[in-house]
Amino acid sequence: MLGKTYDSEVCSMARALEIVGERWSLLILRDALFAGSSRFGEFQRTLGIATNVLSARLEGFVAAGLMERRAGADQAGAPEYVVTAKGRDLVPAIVALTQWGDRWAAPDGPPIEYQHATCGEPVTSQLHCAECGVVDDPAEVQARPGAGMPAEFLAHRRALRRR
Amino acid sequence: MLGKTYDSEVCSMARALEIVGERWSLLILRDALFAGSSRFGEFQRTLGIATNVLSARLEGFVAAGLMERRAGADQAGAPEYVVTAKGRDLVPAIVALTQWGDRWAAPDGPPIEYQHATCGEPVTSQLHCAECGVVDDPAEVQARPGAGMPAEFLAHRRALRRR
Repeated sequence: MLGKTYDSEVCSMARALEIVGERWSLLILRDALFAGSSRFGEFQRTLGIATNVLSARLEGFVAAGLMERRAGADQAGAPEYVVTAKGRDLVPAIVALTQWGDRWAAPDGPPIEYQHATCGEPVTSQLHCAECGVVDDPAEVQARPGAGMPAEFLAHRRALRRR
Repeated sequence: MLGKTYDSEVCSMARALEIVGERWSLLILRDALFAGSSRFGEFQRTLGIATNVLSARLEGFVAAGLMERRAGADQAGAPEYVVTAKGRDLVPAIVALTQWGDRWAAPDGPPIEYQHATCGEPVTSQLHCAECGVVDDPAEVQARPGAGMPAEFLAHRRALRRR
């Protein structure tokens, strides 16, 4: 967990990155969600990640409610780490990041494709306008303050940028 | 840049995270894309980020083709950092991460909302099945090997996980 690195930010993306923005976090979740990994040794062997780092990430996920630790049922009694609904809700972000990599950093083609479990057809991430439908050009997306934005924070930010 | 941290991964998300997965990377891009920041001092003041870290990120973005450095036009002659199409293509991932934070870590409501520049209506990130349309339940998304997945890598991974 990045913890309070972005504490001065009033931003939901910053909050998300404090929970899943550390090295290996999203790759561990990817393997739990899509590769069937659930035990410490599985994550460790397939990712080749240092045990202290992996331990910290799994503990952090449990603390943040992204995973649940369940008593083990395998021969060695190793606990299972199972992704919760909160963790699974990161799938859209994982798919979107994958698509960017497919487009800009995969000269041999997409290593992984996402599919719909119920029909087997490809699943992609799309930007969607409530009025116009699919938004193909990301340059057409703007940000505006929402209900959770304190007015004084916004004024302070603007003043800082223009100084 | 994380550089070769995830070098053993055959994964477009890992490639994406090597380019934008370091601390502050996505927040710098967010400010460039949505808050109008383009000069070193603007990023530095609004984010409160250490100058050596900011410098490394901006240099890395230019090297990776996410930003272009343009000769300055302000009084001090500071160069501008302008997001390229490659950088702007991260908007869907930024929107998806923001939505996760809005849902799971924004008790006061969304600080920022995205809107369509052409009509002002809300823009959201959606998972979309080529056959069924919108996929609301992320549990319905599976991964399968794509054209860029070497068969030997997949076999090796599976063997490691089952060991």
